[in-house]
Amino acid sequence: MEKLSIIKIGGNIIEDETSLNAFLKLFSNLEGNKILVHGGGKRATHIASKLGIESKMVNGRRITDGETLEVITMVYGGLVNKNIVAKLQALNVDAIGLTGADINSIQSEKRPVKEVDFGFVGDVKKVASNSIDKLIKADFTPVFCAITHDGNGQLLNTNADTIASTIGVGMSKIYDTSIYYCFELNGVLKDFNDKNSVIKTINADTYKELLTTEIITDGMIPKIDNCFDALNNGVSKVHIGNTAMLTKENDNFTTITL
Amino acid sequence: MEKLSIIKIGGNIIEDETSLNAFLKLFSNLEGNKILVHGGGKRATHIASKLGIESKMVNGRRITDGETLEVITMVYGGLVNKNIVAKLQALNVDAIGLTGADINSIQSEKRPVKEVDFGFVGDVKKVASNSIDKLIKADFTPVFCAITHDGNGQLLNTNADTIASTIGVGMSKIYDTSIYYCFELNGVLKDFNDKNSVIKTINADTYKELLTTEIITDGMIPKIDNCFDALNNGVSKVHIGNTAMLTKENDNFTTITL
Repeated sequence: MEKLSIIKIGGNIIEDETSLNAFLKLFSNLEGNKILVHGGGKRATHIASKLGIESKMVNGRRITDGETLEVITMVYGGLVNKNIVAKLQALNVDAIGLTGADINSIQSEKRPVKEVDFGFVGDVKKVASNSIDKLIKADFTPVFCAITHDGNGQLLNTNADTIASTIGVGMSKIYDTSIYYCFELNGVLKDFNDKNSVIKTINADTYKELLTTEIITDGMIPKIDNCFDALNNGVSKVHIGNTAMLTKENDNFTTITL
Repeated sequence: MEKLSIIKIGGNIIEDETSLNAFLKLFSNLEGNKILVHGGGKRATHIASKLGIESKMVNGRRITDGETLEVITMVYGGLVNKNIVAKLQALNVDAIGLTGADINSIQSEKRPVKEVDFGFVGDVKKVASNSIDKLIKADFTPVFCAITHDGNGQLLNTNADTIASTIGVGMSKIYDTSIYYCFELNGVLKDFNDKNSVIKTINADTYKELLTTEIITDGMIPKIDNCFDALNNGVSKVHIGNTAMLTKENDNFTTITL
């Protein structure tokens, strides 16, 4: 099986031009088949507020009403995605920007209303691995933003981490797939106050221990659960760390396996 | 040679949800290989003004400063393009939305500053016909917005009519290519006050006559010159009319040939 790397970047990289350029240079040097997944970060909130649209949050999660979805489509699907594509082209990466609607790559369903109505938020239902693979086989590098569609003409806001993991699961039928989650830390830390206390490897057994001893807590739990979901469904490896983990010299990041 | 139809739609269709839906239904029923090119219309101006960005016009042409380019990238590349793609997917057209940066499909150069500095406006230099054809051969339907790039990471605002004609010229090496320019009139009119006085066919000879007799004047001249440019460089036929020309029953539109 050929290898495929899926790299996910978040707001901390996208919002800073210097960080973004440095990351894209690393990404362009990455050998083999690759896919980029990006979030949008605070840029959407900023433009929404300029347009007089208030960002509604419930339990720290954004409520995507119609107006907010328009802003997200503009900012993630247009501004951020197309600028990344243009920058990658300048680095000789033949990038192609996509939402889940393009080539019907990621179909989702609007999250059912329970205690909270999240609005136009989509939970991924189906990844069109073969269509995505047609792009890869044509030597194009897919760049996904965090937008999907329901197949009936409705775009839906979708969590970028989930997009990366579900694309990973889908593509693992065709490729030996690894996911790299880039964030601001060097990896999963033993001690949050010591940025170098990176836990180099986590597997299902050591994860249980890390939970029992409360070394892994709070927001890191759903992140790692998400990684194990991917691993349990075909993804070979998941890496968590800062963008330097994409260089061969650096091994100071966290690798998660079954 | 297989046939390819390139359909260009403008602001009058995009700005009205009912017109857009009706057009997309016609487009979805169109047989054979096809490409859609869309402008953005007044939506960008409207959002720019909401964001406090003034639209600067010189001789009726928009000046694209940095802020305006951001809005255009958001509105044309994000909001308009991705909604069209999602709607086409609902009509079983496997659409893929593109700027000229995606798959390096349309490279342009920033218009040189002469009497007027148009800002971030691009004049098309090169169309990557083979890359676009890879998408068509993979059974995807390209949907282009009116944005190109310079190959050095800079996105550029580009006239949608020109995008349609230069893609047409590029693709005519591979396909027997026709371009359909959809606008609000039934076609090129003999008498502007009679909406049914459509000139059914124009060729190089009759065009000269129509110019001499001043039946074709003003804004229609650059439009038709643009059509002849395309025809002189490989495009087989150019059609001008309203969207009904895409139905087989209707023959009340203008066809331009050499």
